[in-house]
Amino acid sequence: MAAQIKSLNEECGVFGVWGDPHAVELTHLGLHTLQHRGQEGAGIVGRTPAGLRRHYGFGLVSQVFAHPEDLQALRGPAALGHVRYSTAGGRILENIQPLLFRFADGAVALAHNGNLTNAMSLRAKLEASGAIFQSTSDTEVLMHLLRRSPKPTFVEQLKEALTQVHGGFAFALLTEQGLYAACDPQGFRPLVVGQLPSGGYVVCSETAALTAVGAELIKDIAPGELISITDQGLNSQAYTDKTQLAVCSMEFVYFARPDSEIHGVNVHQARVAMGRQLAKEQPAEADIVVGVPNSSLSAALGYAQASGIPYELGLVKSQYVARTFIQPTQALRERSVRMKLSVLKATVAGKRVVLVDDSIVRGTTAKQIVQLLKEAGAKSVHLRIASPPLRFPCFYGIDIQTTKELFAANHSVAEMKRILGVDSLGFLSVQGLEDSVGLQTTAPHRGLCVAYFTGQYPTPLDDYAANLHDELACLSMDLSEVNA
Amino acid sequence: MAAQIKSLNEECGVFGVWGDPHAVELTHLGLHTLQHRGQEGAGIVGRTPAGLRRHYGFGLVSQVFAHPEDLQALRGPAALGHVRYSTAGGRILENIQPLLFRFADGAVALAHNGNLTNAMSLRAKLEASGAIFQSTSDTEVLMHLLRRSPKPTFVEQLKEALTQVHGGFAFALLTEQGLYAACDPQGFRPLVVGQLPSGGYVVCSETAALTAVGAELIKDIAPGELISITDQGLNSQAYTDKTQLAVCSMEFVYFARPDSEIHGVNVHQARVAMGRQLAKEQPAEADIVVGVPNSSLSAALGYAQASGIPYELGLVKSQYVARTFIQPTQALRERSVRMKLSVLKATVAGKRVVLVDDSIVRGTTAKQIVQLLKEAGAKSVHLRIASPPLRFPCFYGIDIQTTKELFAANHSVAEMKRILGVDSLGFLSVQGLEDSVGLQTTAPHRGLCVAYFTGQYPTPLDDYAANLHDELACLSMDLSEVNA
Amino acid sequence: MAAQIKSLNEECGVFGVWGDPHAVELTHLGLHTLQHRGQEGAGIVGRTPAGLRRHYGFGLVSQVFAHPEDLQALRGPAALGHVRYSTAGGRILENIQPLLFRFADGAVALAHNGNLTNAMSLRAKLEASGAIFQSTSDTEVLMHLLRRSPKPTFVEQLKEALTQVHGGFAFALLTEQGLYAACDPQGFRPLVVGQLPSGGYVVCSETAALTAVGAELIKDIAPGELISITDQGLNSQAYTDKTQLAVCSMEFVYFARPDSEIHGVNVHQARVAMGRQLAKEQPAEADIVVGVPNSSLSAALGYAQASGIPYELGLVKSQYVARTFIQPTQALRERSVRMKLSVLKATVAGKRVVLVDDSIVRGTTAKQIVQLLKEAGAKSVHLRIASPPLRFPCFYGIDIQTTKELFAANHSVAEMKRILGVDSLGFLSVQGLEDSVGLQTTAPHRGLCVAYFTGQYPTPLDDYAANLHDELACLSMDLSEVNA
Amino acid sequence: MAAQIKSLNEECGVFGVWGDPHAVELTHLGLHTLQHRGQEGAGIVGRTPAGLRRHYGFGLVSQVFAHPEDLQALRGPAALGHVRYSTAGGRILENIQPLLFRFADGAVALAHNGNLTNAMSLRAKLEASGAIFQSTSDTEVLMHLLRRSPKPTFVEQLKEALTQVHGGFAFALLTEQGLYAACDPQGFRPLVVGQLPSGGYVVCSETAALTAVGAELIKDIAPGELISITDQGLNSQAYTDKTQLAVCSMEFVYFARPDSEIHGVNVHQARVAMGRQLAKEQPAEADIVVGVPNSSLSAALGYAQASGIPYELGLVKSQYVARTFIQPTQALRERSVRMKLSVLKATVAGKRVVLVDDSIVRGTTAKQIVQLLKEAGAKSVHLRIASPPLRFPCFYGIDIQTTKELFAANHSVAEMKRILGVDSLGFLSVQGLEDSVGLQTTAPHRGLCVAYFTGQYPTPLDDYAANLHDELACLSMDLSEVNA
Repeated sequence: MAAQIKSLNEECGVFGVWGDPHAVELTHLGLHTLQHRGQEGAGIVGRTPAGLRRHYGFGLVSQVFAHPEDLQALRGPAALGHVRYSTAGGRILENIQPLLFRFADGAVALAHNGNLTNAMSLRAKLEASGAIFQSTSDTEVLMHLLRRSPKPTFVEQLKEALTQVHGGFAFALLTEQGLYAACDPQGFRPLVVGQLPSGGYVVCSETAALTAVGAELIKDIAPGELISITDQGLNSQAYTDKTQLAVCSMEFVYFARPDSEIHGVNVHQARVAMGRQLAKEQPAEADIVVGVPNSSLSAALGYAQASGIPYELGLVKSQYVARTFIQPTQALRERSVRMKLSVLKATVAGKRVVLVDDSIVRGTTAKQIVQLLKEAGAKSVHLRIASPPLRFPCFYGIDIQTTKELFAANHSVAEMKRILGVDSLGFLSVQGLEDSVGLQTTAPHRGLCVAYFTGQYPTPLDDYAANLHDELACLSMDLSEVNA
Repeated sequence: MAAQIKSLNEECGVFGVWGDPHAVELTHLGLHTLQHRGQEGAGIVGRTPAGLRRHYGFGLVSQVFAHPEDLQALRGPAALGHVRYSTAGGRILENIQPLLFRFADGAVALAHNGNLTNAMSLRAKLEASGAIFQSTSDTEVLMHLLRRSPKPTFVEQLKEALTQVHGGFAFALLTEQGLYAACDPQGFRPLVVGQLPSGGYVVCSETAALTAVGAELIKDIAPGELISITDQGLNSQAYTDKTQLAVCSMEFVYFARPDSEIHGVNVHQARVAMGRQLAKEQPAEADIVVGVPNSSLSAALGYAQASGIPYELGLVKSQYVARTFIQPTQALRERSVRMKLSVLKATVAGKRVVLVDDSIVRGTTAKQIVQLLKEAGAKSVHLRIASPPLRFPCFYGIDIQTTKELFAANHSVAEMKRILGVDSLGFLSVQGLEDSVGLQTTAPHRGLCVAYFTGQYPTPLDDYAANLHDELACLSMDLSEVNA
Repeated sequence: MAAQIKSLNEECGVFGVWGDPHAVELTHLGLHTLQHRGQEGAGIVGRTPAGLRRHYGFGLVSQVFAHPEDLQALRGPAALGHVRYSTAGGRILENIQPLLFRFADGAVALAHNGNLTNAMSLRAKLEASGAIFQSTSDTEVLMHLLRRSPKPTFVEQLKEALTQVHGGFAFALLTEQGLYAACDPQGFRPLVVGQLPSGGYVVCSETAALTAVGAELIKDIAPGELISITDQGLNSQAYTDKTQLAVCSMEFVYFARPDSEIHGVNVHQARVAMGRQLAKEQPAEADIVVGVPNSSLSAALGYAQASGIPYELGLVKSQYVARTFIQPTQALRERSVRMKLSVLKATVAGKRVVLVDDSIVRGTTAKQIVQLLKEAGAKSVHLRIASPPLRFPCFYGIDIQTTKELFAANHSVAEMKRILGVDSLGFLSVQGLEDSVGLQTTAPHRGLCVAYFTGQYPTPLDDYAANLHDELACLSMDLSEVNA
Repeated sequence: MAAQIKSLNEECGVFGVWGDPHAVELTHLGLHTLQHRGQEGAGIVGRTPAGLRRHYGFGLVSQVFAHPEDLQALRGPAALGHVRYSTAGGRILENIQPLLFRFADGAVALAHNGNLTNAMSLRAKLEASGAIFQSTSDTEVLMHLLRRSPKPTFVEQLKEALTQVHGGFAFALLTEQGLYAACDPQGFRPLVVGQLPSGGYVVCSETAALTAVGAELIKDIAPGELISITDQGLNSQAYTDKTQLAVCSMEFVYFARPDSEIHGVNVHQARVAMGRQLAKEQPAEADIVVGVPNSSLSAALGYAQASGIPYELGLVKSQYVARTFIQPTQALRERSVRMKLSVLKATVAGKRVVLVDDSIVRGTTAKQIVQLLKEAGAKSVHLRIASPPLRFPCFYGIDIQTTKELFAANHSVAEMKRILGVDSLGFLSVQGLEDSVGLQTTAPHRGLCVAYFTGQYPTPLDDYAANLHDELACLSMDLSEVNA
């Protein structure tokens, strides 16, 4: 579903190329493919004959790069691009990435997807010793740590900096000498490297972007791994050996494109498996299965396959998702939502409907859809969520940093059923989710991070720890209870 | 599929409101819902306290109305809007609709969907007697005829003008006194009227736009019908009694939204029926059925249902369809196409695929998709087209005015199969199409226009007749043969 | 002074080229030179290999032609351009000139400077017989008359049309066959023709624009003259022989550039002569002479020369005249005016100042300047106006169509002196003005139109006659009295 | 003359307000008044209820602040603004000022006019210890020094930082606590403080901007002085006592507005005095005196007064200075220059002309003007320059950092006369310049910096010293010789 409707937002997409004469054009195409990962702003740094040059701004890739000259000015054999979604308050131009740092000894571009759990304390410490930050994002901390490292080479400085930041991160850096990419020790955020027909290399957030530019996947960057790509080729090393895979499960549930593969698992197929498993765990008596377009169609297909209930097209999503002006009346505001999503009355009228959605965040959209279905004559609506209830914040790069707005953190299943106005409500189990994805690993939770469902975080929470404790107290929850 | 990929384009969407304080805002929402009918330009005329005022420009509705003040300047109790797709050469601002005519005795706004077959000869005659046209579109002819009519009232002048124009048309006019809407005598182009909760009226191209603004359908405007809406309410009359229903079948096949209903038939359900019928007429041995998103998903679902072959998600369409710059190399151009449509390799690899598309125009997109599927490892591709072969031009409002580029007009089925690289190829029959739509009427072809398939046009072609004759001669076709 | 401050506005500048490969670029330069004649909008029509093409919009020439491609699309061997100032209410895109009419038998571009006195009645008559106007400007009337003329050739149709319109006009028309230019029978509005080094021809409003593009003046287009420029060269003919020169005297007083020549008289020198004559007619005891920049500097120089009082720089006009936002308080609004014009305190403090201004329209600007001078310490301010009191409307192309706002129409000299807060006030006499300009002619008023000073109009006022009569009655004026 | 024509460019204008509810609107007006000091970019930081907020961009003030909301978002009781001209290469958005630094303990905005001679070495040292710069301008160095200062208060940190930077500078800083302004120890660059009717304070580059917003001058900020303005009022202190006045003489010659006063001397009157002195030092036999508009009109007036030769208007400068596109041919490029400046043929034809210009930088513009005058029929042209020959670079804030392009550094007076095509050529003497300005001081050169004329720099040149030595060697000049 569109970012405008749902409050769950990925914090970025990264795309870099080294060693291809069309590096900038390929990065432009790649960012289009990753546009679903961030719509607030975009930027590209190109390695031109005159050094690293940047073009960036607010809006979609097609808005930021509105004129051919915007790309031409960046042309060269290497480039790094970024699409950004930001949290409220951080909407300043200085936060649009890649950040570009110009030093007497050369420039460095930096792009990031994720969230650092100790960024605030690191920044406070750095500022106390005279550091000046140009952005308000956590990303910039890495560069200050790198520049203050006494190590003799850029790569060693970078390795030292990477060991000092905590949380979920996928960093990409571009200099005149090379393209560098690194994953956090849990591999929370996806990052892959591929090769172009020209022999050039691509580093990006999802394999779908590799495919879009005609590159072949070389590998998923591993937890704790640092990749260096220079004119001498690709070099890999571990900057830490304290790693344990914990891929963000919401990438499989909602964020990633269905045509991407994460650690060998196709996202669409994982979603079909979730839908199948959901049908087993939460069966329903119904005439048709309808998915919320577009992210829930795979799970709906799986539910239909496993349950034998016919898959149907019951909701139509507008192809032209437009930001609409604030409407003068409540009635107009509601119609504005309907403009984005409409019910196929002919399909649902008189039918018992299984409505499959990938997740519930605040519950408002689900409530509206249920209401639309009922108005269109659905006899009953059985809501099935292809993931467990979202009850805890994420600190590794998804924009849920408070439990206050989480529907499932504040209501029991019975309450949710009543509020949403559905005839029945069922969620996928955590175990079901883990089995459906089925990563090949011996790591806990089969290599997934399921903290937003269980409250069990794979790493210390650093600057957020106190805050989380207070919030949960406020909800009269405690971790032992919820995880029982 | 997106207009950028396919060469088949509808020539417009119309949306008007009378008698609601939020007429302009509703028209804005309505145009968003009709955006698929035209992306070249948009405009709204509002009935403000200072008279009719217009805002218009090139681009999507969200681009033309980029600032809240663009709408504010138009506010009032009535409005008329339009989205436009234009043919090459006509890309001048003066052609963006609604056209606005300012007379000493009041202003008139005019919006049109369709194509007039005698516009050129009427225009020549009018110019010879001193008329000056401000646009190069056929639409403006109506206003000149109206203004030269000696009849005493606006409605009578309009009626007289309507009897002079031929072809396919859905006109809407707004004055300070009323909102007027009329359909051609065959009802080629859809036009409906509905009512808002406020009591106000809406006239628009598709019922989905009624739903989007919370209006209830009153009726499809009938062939030869003229609707007048004033502060005294809605009045209907026939401007001619020589009518015979011949709805453009491509509205059902491709153009209209799945959640619209045309003369009582839901478009999605008509497409499912076409898919079902196609499975019967053109069966295939295969493992999965894949539809080309988004317009062919309904037909694919029908094919899967009737054939028993599982429906699968095999192609992913980018949510962010962006105009891309002209790419410097052929390889980049191809990647640019892949950015818009990608294959779900995990779904199709090793499978025998039934690929369902709604129609074939030039064949280039189908060829690319087939190639993508084969590259992704599809064992075989059986292409099934949910409509008959497009072999003749349309002169009633679809942008196919030449047979030269029509794939099926220039090649036999065997040749097409070879060129596309498919393992088998099958089209829906004309009879099958007519039965699938199933309009309740005794008109020929069950009330559909199927001229682009058969070459049998429901009306004289006027200014186009000679031209068509030449083209067919050129193709060594003649109508008797092709319709045998 | 800037158009933003003063309410006296010329209604346009015209610039056309025929027969030069850089016709469009030259027209662009020429319009920049004529920018002082209109800042609301601009446009150029170029004769491209694909026919006449237009680019136009609101704003300064540099804003309308903001990208090199805006000009490139128009390139060819002929062009016609226009800069426009419009009266309130007419601010619609359709009024930006050149108007471009596309006929089956070829396109015609039309640009105009002036005002037609019988446009309203002609338009009413034309509309009654079915004509449709695309703009609300009077200019378009000419084209309708031309197209309805039964004459066999374009030039004869144009001649017939020219005899039907009354008032002040300088028309330029561009077709694929030629560039045409015509003046009204009194020659109210200036229009000249010149020749480029390339042999090509230029038609434009002022000689300064000829100089700017390197063209030599051939001649001022005479009252009642029609110039036709084709590939066969320049042809001149009279479309009427009822002519009598009455050049708008405000062109000499205020509008035209100082480096332009009108009917052989340099504008700067005419202004110096006005200043000299003013010193004789209205002497003053003072220490310095200060002119209001920039239009009054020439007259101030003449006053200083004739009086022997030193010329000084007492007012500084901002080089960057910017439209400023509406300011929230009165104090801010006043400061906003001071930003555009400031006093050189060091020059005026303790001095008796002769302040020379070219004219007084509403009196508000003069009042502000006087106040600024007094605040800066001027001992006394003797205001001298280098033209007679403006008391009557103009109907030939200057934006004074009502006497209500004319300061001198509503107050005696004594009242004006008191309101403005000056120590003395003197105007140039009508005779003095006529002698200062000194056109070589036997026409009344030495070939000038002085109607805004005397109320004696050189032509019937047609559609405006009744209106003027009412206004004067309202002011308790009658023509015999004021001209006594 | 316009920045587009002449290569001499001031590097900025500064305007700040503390303690007025309309601080942002006043800053906007003030920047318009200072627009002549920089046209590349502009910015304003406002102290809003939500902290310091910034709006900035490339272009004129009217272009950067194109919508009312651009100002509204900054509203509050204090603001700091800047207009910038930059040297080639530095044209990146990050360099547009005020720079805004966001710290955990509060934000700081920084605006600067001048040039630091030891910025490069300071930056190298800071980067070596881990500092990261966001811009490439020298301005940012101050903030890094300030943040690394161990002093306990902001003001003490700022004082320490000010003693470490060398060269010419006028800094203004805004925090939530106050507005701060400081001048370099020589007072190279002007900076004044004034008071508004509201009691609020203004700090800005020129007194003309005080006048524009209705503020009264309190004082010129003295060499080595630091002004602190807080809610407790204005506080002044010396951050160093090693000061000696050396105001940039080019401020009097060319940069500053004629209505500004610097250290008690009105700029217009200083220019008139220069013109008078020039007439004494370099008399000419001639019929008229013509100044190059607009900056040389004051000196021309002085020359006319002292010589008794009549002052005349001989050159007209276009009011609408527009950036023009690169023209396809040399002829068009030349016409493009003429568009900006044209000769009043009627004034100069047949006359012996004294042409007064304020300075000669590269000589190209002067050459063009002389040619225009000769073409217009001037019998002879006697060029008089109201300043001494520019032969040495400036390192204190004027954009002449190389002697290679300086006309007078590369040619003798005789050669210059021949190249320019004038009948005689004369410059003002250094002594004449110093006496004409006549600052009340016992400092060397009567308190002026005349280094660009003499090569004697008032301070060590730090990072530029080696470079200058090489350049002079290259020109076969040495300081002892040129100053002999």
